[in-house]
Amino acid sequence: MSNITIVGGGLVGSLLAIFLAKRGHSVNVYERRPDPRKTDVYAGRSINLVVSHRGWTALRAAGVEEAVKAITVPVYARMMHDREGNLNRVPYSIDNKAIWSVSRGELNRRLLSEAEKLPNVKLFFDHRCVDVNLENATCHFQREEGDHVVVKADVVFGADGAFSAVRSKMMWGRFTYSQEYIEHDYKEVAFPANADGTPKMDPHCLHIWPRRWFMMMGLANQDGGFTGTLFMPHNATAQSPGFDTVREEKEVRKFFTEQFPDALPIVPDIVEQYLRNPQSSLVIIRCNPWQVNGKVALIGDAAHAIVPFYGEGMNAGYEDCKVLNDLLNEHGDDNWAEVLHRYAAARKPNGDAIADLSLRNFVEMRDLVADPKFLLRKKIEGYIQAKHPDKWLPLYSQVKFSDIAYKDAWNEGLRHDRIMEEVLAMKGVEEKWESEEVERKVLGLLKAGK
Amino acid sequence: MSNITIVGGGLVGSLLAIFLAKRGHSVNVYERRPDPRKTDVYAGRSINLVVSHRGWTALRAAGVEEAVKAITVPVYARMMHDREGNLNRVPYSIDNKAIWSVSRGELNRRLLSEAEKLPNVKLFFDHRCVDVNLENATCHFQREEGDHVVVKADVVFGADGAFSAVRSKMMWGRFTYSQEYIEHDYKEVAFPANADGTPKMDPHCLHIWPRRWFMMMGLANQDGGFTGTLFMPHNATAQSPGFDTVREEKEVRKFFTEQFPDALPIVPDIVEQYLRNPQSSLVIIRCNPWQVNGKVALIGDAAHAIVPFYGEGMNAGYEDCKVLNDLLNEHGDDNWAEVLHRYAAARKPNGDAIADLSLRNFVEMRDLVADPKFLLRKKIEGYIQAKHPDKWLPLYSQVKFSDIAYKDAWNEGLRHDRIMEEVLAMKGVEEKWESEEVERKVLGLLKAGK
Repeated sequence: MSNITIVGGGLVGSLLAIFLAKRGHSVNVYERRPDPRKTDVYAGRSINLVVSHRGWTALRAAGVEEAVKAITVPVYARMMHDREGNLNRVPYSIDNKAIWSVSRGELNRRLLSEAEKLPNVKLFFDHRCVDVNLENATCHFQREEGDHVVVKADVVFGADGAFSAVRSKMMWGRFTYSQEYIEHDYKEVAFPANADGTPKMDPHCLHIWPRRWFMMMGLANQDGGFTGTLFMPHNATAQSPGFDTVREEKEVRKFFTEQFPDALPIVPDIVEQYLRNPQSSLVIIRCNPWQVNGKVALIGDAAHAIVPFYGEGMNAGYEDCKVLNDLLNEHGDDNWAEVLHRYAAARKPNGDAIADLSLRNFVEMRDLVADPKFLLRKKIEGYIQAKHPDKWLPLYSQVKFSDIAYKDAWNEGLRHDRIMEEVLAMKGVEEKWESEEVERKVLGLLKAGK
Repeated sequence: MSNITIVGGGLVGSLLAIFLAKRGHSVNVYERRPDPRKTDVYAGRSINLVVSHRGWTALRAAGVEEAVKAITVPVYARMMHDREGNLNRVPYSIDNKAIWSVSRGELNRRLLSEAEKLPNVKLFFDHRCVDVNLENATCHFQREEGDHVVVKADVVFGADGAFSAVRSKMMWGRFTYSQEYIEHDYKEVAFPANADGTPKMDPHCLHIWPRRWFMMMGLANQDGGFTGTLFMPHNATAQSPGFDTVREEKEVRKFFTEQFPDALPIVPDIVEQYLRNPQSSLVIIRCNPWQVNGKVALIGDAAHAIVPFYGEGMNAGYEDCKVLNDLLNEHGDDNWAEVLHRYAAARKPNGDAIADLSLRNFVEMRDLVADPKFLLRKKIEGYIQAKHPDKWLPLYSQVKFSDIAYKDAWNEGLRHDRIMEEVLAMKGVEEKWESEEVERKVLGLLKAGK
C-alpha cells in the first residue's frame, strides 16, 4: 500500500481520499483554507451545484451515496421566465429524471466528515502548497503560523482546483496549458424563503431568465431559498448591457425592473445585493499531460476547469475519481506509473469534451431556450426518444443521465444537430412534428449514418 | 518625462531602452542574468538569429542600424541538401534581397553598449524580478547576494521573454493565456570553419536538410563557422525517428550517416556534439491583454513567444518597439494609458498572425522545400511577381522584406494558396509555367477576388 498526498480538500480531494483510503492506502489531505466545518469559507461565492448521474455513480462506488442524498433537492425541469413574467416548464427528460441541487459548502463538509471516519485518512487545514518536487513526490506546505512542512509520498494528487499550485509547478516542464476567461462574469444574489420556510418558487425546477446576451438562474437550497446567479458580459456591447454599464443604483434598479420584473417582489433587496456582492469571472483551463513521472497527477478542476453551464464540473471530477478507482481494480494498487498513465490518457479527451459541452450549453440556456424552434426540437427529440429509446438519447440526457463518455456524447450531439437541422427544415413541421412522416425522416437519416 | 522600468535586458529590452531614452525618458533596465559582456550567458543554447526588413526598420528608427549591420552576414537563398548530398539553391526573392544572420549574444552585447552610451539609461544585472504591483508600477527584484530591491516607476515594460515574470503576475487577473509545446525539440551542433578561417559551405545561404518529419539547418557565423540546429520529434512515430530513439552512440552515428551524409565530413565530431549538447523544447505563447491599467505592458517574446521557423521572433519584437515609438510620436509622451491601450490593440492580432505564420513555415522548411510541386509554385510566383510586382508579392517577401502587417500577410498568403492551387491543377503546368496562359489565369483569379 502507498502513502498518498492529496493537495486540496475540496469536493474532489475529499472524495478521492475516501476512494483511496478504502483501498487501504494511507492518505494525507492538505487544504489551503481553514476547516469549512468550523469557518464559512464559501460565503458569497458559490454557484449552487448539481449532482447528476456520473456524480452518483462515483459517490455510490465510494459508499457515500446515502450521506450525500440526504442534503440534496431533486430538480426535474427548467422553468423559463420571460420578460412579462410568463412561465414555461420544460422537463429535463421524458421519464421524469432529476438532477440534484446541493450547497457546495454543505457537500464539502459532509464528505470531509465521511473521509475523517476512516482511520487511514488524515486532514490538514491551513496548509498552503508552495512547492512540489515532481521527481520524488515531495510537497512543501506553508502554514499561517509560519512553519514549513515537507511531506514525501509515493504519489501526489493535485486536487487543488482551477488555480492549482501542483499544476503551476508542472507548467515549468514541457506542459501545454491554456486559461481562457469568457466574456461573461457573474454575480450572486440570495432569494429568500417565505417567512414560514416554504419556497417562493417551485424548488424542483432550475429557474432561468434567458435574455439572449445575458441571463439569470436560480437553484433551490434546502432552506426554502434559492441561490440566484446573474451572468452578464464584463463589458457592454451594442447588443447587451454589461457589468461595466450596470453600476449605479439607478441603472441597477432600471435593469432589474426591465429585465427581471417577476424577480423583484421575490427578492426585495435585489438591487442592494447586486451593489454589495462581488463580481466574479469564469475561466476555462485545459492542460496536458495530466500526470508526470507516474508520481504526480491532476484531478478535478486542477486538470479541467470549465464554465458552470452544464452543472458538470464536479460530476466530471467525481468521474475522474471513479475511473481512477476502476483502473486500480484492474491494474493493482502497486502499479502507479501504469495506472496514472492510463488515467490521464482516458480522461484528458473527456475533459476537453465537457469543456466544449459546457460552453455549448451556455448558448442554449441564455439564448435558445427562449427560441420557439429550439423548444420544437426538444419536443421532436422527446417524441423520437419515446418511440425509439434504443436509437435516440438526447444530448442532455447523455451528459446528465448516463455514463456515456463525454467525448462520445459530444460527437453524438453534433450528429443530432445535423439530423434535426434537416427535420426542422421540413415543410409544416410545426404542425406535424408528432407524425409518422417525421419519425420516418429521423430514422432514415439515422440509418444513412448522417 | 517618465520613469520607466524595463524588466529584461535581452534583445528587445535593450532596444526599447534606446528608443525610450532617446525620447528623454529616464530608463532603468533590470536583467536577471549577469552582464553578457562579462560572462557567456548564451553558451550552447542559441538558434542563430536573422535580422530582416522589420528589424532594420526599427533599428534604423532607433539610430543603431549601422552598429548592428557590422556584425551580420547577409543570406540570399536557401540551400537544400538532399540525402545524396545534392544541392539546390532557391533565392529568397527575385531581386536579390537578403536576410541577415547574426549571433544572439553578439547582438545583445552590442545593443547593451549602445544603450549604456545614453546618460538616462541605467543597466542593472543579476536582478531577478520576483513581484510586480500592477496598480502602481512597482517592481521587486531579488539579487544573488540576497538583497531585495523595490523600484517604483510610471510605466513598467515586461521584456523578459517567453517565461516572463511580469506576465506571470498579470496571469492572476482576468488574463487569457496559453502555452503550447510543439512536438519537435531541437539540439545545436557547431559547424567549424576551415583551418584558415574560411567557411566550408556557402555562408550566404541558409542551409537546410529537409527530411519531411525532421530537419537540420545551418546559419553562418562571422567566424566562418555555422550554427547547426537539428529539429526532431520529442517522441518517435511510425514515420519519424525521435530524440527518444536516437540516443545511444551507435544509433546517433547511424542516424547522421543515413540522413545527413554530407554533413559528416564537415563536422567530424557531430555525433559527440549530439550526445553532449542539451535537448531544448519549443513553445508558443499567446496572451491577452498585453497591458493593464495603462501602466504595465508586455513586449517581445513575453507577449508572443513563437517557434523560430520564420526567423521573425526578434523582428516581431523590434516592430513592437517601433510601433510603440510611433504611437508616442502621435499621442505624446505623457499619455501612457492611451498609448499602451493602442499599442496592445495594434500588436496583439499581429502577434497571433506571426505565431501562425511561423508554424506554417516549419511545414514548408522541413517538408515542402523537398517537394517538386512546391518548387514549381515558387517559380510561378517569381514569374508573376517579375511581370506584375504591384499585383503579386509572395508571402515570404511580405513577411521578410516588407512592413505589411503580419495579419494582412497571413490573409494574403491564404489567398495565394487558393489561387496557386488552381494554377498548379492546370494541365501541363510543369511545361508551360512561364506562359501567357498561366499569367492570364493568375490575373483572372486575382481579379475575381479569389
